[in-house]
Amino acid sequence: MTSGPAATGPHVLRRINATAVLNALRAADGHTATVSDLVVATGLSRPAVTRALTTLAESGIAEFAGTTEHQIGRPAQRARFRAELGHVAGIDIGPHKLHVMTADLAGTVLAERRATTPPEPTGPRLVALLRATLADVAAEAGITPTDLWSVAVGTPGIVDHDRGEVVLAPSIPGWSSLPMIAELRDWLGCPVGIENDVNLAVVAERWRGEAGDNLLFVQWGERIGTGMVIDDKPYRGASSAAGELGFIDLVTDLDDEPKPPTDGLGAFERLVGAGEILRLGVQRCERPLRDRLTGTDDIGPLFDAAAAGDPAALSVVDTIATRFARGLAVQLLIMDPQCVVVGGGVSRAGDVLFDAVRRRLGRQLLVPIDLRVSALGAGNVALGAVRMALDQVEERLTALL
Amino acid sequence: MTSGPAATGPHVLRRINATAVLNALRAADGHTATVSDLVVATGLSRPAVTRALTTLAESGIAEFAGTTEHQIGRPAQRARFRAELGHVAGIDIGPHKLHVMTADLAGTVLAERRATTPPEPTGPRLVALLRATLADVAAEAGITPTDLWSVAVGTPGIVDHDRGEVVLAPSIPGWSSLPMIAELRDWLGCPVGIENDVNLAVVAERWRGEAGDNLLFVQWGERIGTGMVIDDKPYRGASSAAGELGFIDLVTDLDDEPKPPTDGLGAFERLVGAGEILRLGVQRCERPLRDRLTGTDDIGPLFDAAAAGDPAALSVVDTIATRFARGLAVQLLIMDPQCVVVGGGVSRAGDVLFDAVRRRLGRQLLVPIDLRVSALGAGNVALGAVRMALDQVEERLTALL
Repeated sequence: MTSGPAATGPHVLRRINATAVLNALRAADGHTATVSDLVVATGLSRPAVTRALTTLAESGIAEFAGTTEHQIGRPAQRARFRAELGHVAGIDIGPHKLHVMTADLAGTVLAERRATTPPEPTGPRLVALLRATLADVAAEAGITPTDLWSVAVGTPGIVDHDRGEVVLAPSIPGWSSLPMIAELRDWLGCPVGIENDVNLAVVAERWRGEAGDNLLFVQWGERIGTGMVIDDKPYRGASSAAGELGFIDLVTDLDDEPKPPTDGLGAFERLVGAGEILRLGVQRCERPLRDRLTGTDDIGPLFDAAAAGDPAALSVVDTIATRFARGLAVQLLIMDPQCVVVGGGVSRAGDVLFDAVRRRLGRQLLVPIDLRVSALGAGNVALGAVRMALDQVEERLTALL
Repeated sequence: MTSGPAATGPHVLRRINATAVLNALRAADGHTATVSDLVVATGLSRPAVTRALTTLAESGIAEFAGTTEHQIGRPAQRARFRAELGHVAGIDIGPHKLHVMTADLAGTVLAERRATTPPEPTGPRLVALLRATLADVAAEAGITPTDLWSVAVGTPGIVDHDRGEVVLAPSIPGWSSLPMIAELRDWLGCPVGIENDVNLAVVAERWRGEAGDNLLFVQWGERIGTGMVIDDKPYRGASSAAGELGFIDLVTDLDDEPKPPTDGLGAFERLVGAGEILRLGVQRCERPLRDRLTGTDDIGPLFDAAAAGDPAALSVVDTIATRFARGLAVQLLIMDPQCVVVGGGVSRAGDVLFDAVRRRLGRQLLVPIDLRVSALGAGNVALGAVRMALDQVEERLTALL
């Protein structure tokens, strides 16, 4: 338990116990906890928990928050983590949109903003937009960016976790060679993590949404990516490149060579991504729906029309459901997960789309699958980045003890 | 370490130590080990290892096998596991062939036989063939089937490990509803395990072939199946149905509904399996090669001709390599393994095929892949079944102590 005389003594024990109680309080996700709750969560004695809470309160990390009256016995003392002590930011950056959230240290989102990226985005342009948007969102939460304790960034492509760099991101020219994380760290003076956007969506699902030990998560928006949870752990593959369903090719004639992509999109996402859904909508639907779908990135009106029985909109749903089920079936035949959760922008299309997908999937699989639509919608990557940023603040918190 | 007075005492300790030394001797895979080797392998003292070896020798499980002369010090006593004490059988059963091996308790194969299954195989016919073949192979090893200590069966399809039953095996009509394992157990009076054939091929690869912590194994023969090793553990999926690459559909027009298979073969294995390779060979090659490929299941002459520069044979290689690379690329984009090992009958096709596959794969992947050909060939499923059968004999061995 100890590594020598230097690591023992009441001071060290006090810090260890305070850290354990702090972690239990933080796990309450913004709620208060009684001393009894914390005794159960930490395995410490009641006096040790009370002493730890006093230490945390003296450091400004926690506070006592009134009592609960019991019918029998003394009132239960309640405590809470002072989540307002600091702030974190979660960022979702992609070829078409930027999404920035600030949250308190309990993960409660205080401000968020979505921005559309300029056409033909490049790395440096995206970083400039990111800095401006982060400053706006911080101001709305009453702070400046340099007040942030921790930031995490979700990005398309393959991330080198050891070096904190984007290794490959075909959808954003110049992105992978950019020292973006180092620049943000210099500017903000706090830890800045980076992670593949779909992996962060999975983090958000497990934090706030559907959970499962063996789960396939499909992020369906402009692009298609998947994240897998195997034995309750994220599976990233040997080169952090697993789950690239968006790049599988189901259309090139089998005896021909597939052509390399020219627009940064993979073969499958080009067939079922939000861009193709809108393109089919404009092509097949009549006015006024056609006009509403022209020059927008909002697929909502198309699926609303389909749900109301519009035949042209239904034909788009039919085409997209057929294609999506074909690609998803491939990954299900290979992975055999317990359930599939679909998130991302297209996940808001509703039952009209997903019932059609379920019908088509059934006929192509060897075992039935439980397909669910995420409750988190398109904000899940930024939310997963908030969660990652929260995981990075422990060191700064315990330094206060 | 102990569970009460009944579990202590010199008798129990002697059994525990003898079992530890026995396991270390068995891990030597048929070779002898010195007392010093066993001290290192078990962590027991030299006197304890010597006492354990005496116990094992008295039970007939091990024997002393001479000494090694050292230049300095006393000669090292050597011991060996008496692998001839019993026999196991490993069985690979499929829609077109049956492969039965008997081995001693060290896994040395003593006799093996391949049989071609009758056309239109049914479960009962296969069981009859299995019983006859097992009796032949046992006789060749000087025993009768009821002398076997343990048997394991590899089968296509999805296996319910809890119930020891085949749940789904579209390639053999009637197979999945058959109480085959229970019948074999009644006949043989020994443990009979059952496992998906491709999972057993992976077991054989890790026992006798290429090993890896994160590995995709592709069994390529008449059928296509894959086995994955993730974090050094076999990954079977939530319903033991993972890795069904043979069933992915890369040919049906994307906007059409895929048709259910009528011949038990999945869409992808119908395109690249040994049957299709031979069909293309007969279709494209001239006599006398065409005649050699007609009515056989041996693809060897086709690949020999391709390696020698025969243009028609090379065109078959080109078609098959292009198709196989397309399907494999899909699984690699999803799984991102450290390396791929190809086994099964087609793996013996040689560099002429696999160099072509490697060239085509490269252009479709986001990260490079290390593709290797298994050294074990088509016998890997039966060999993996032998390994599984060996894992089942521990109880019977320790009962002798």
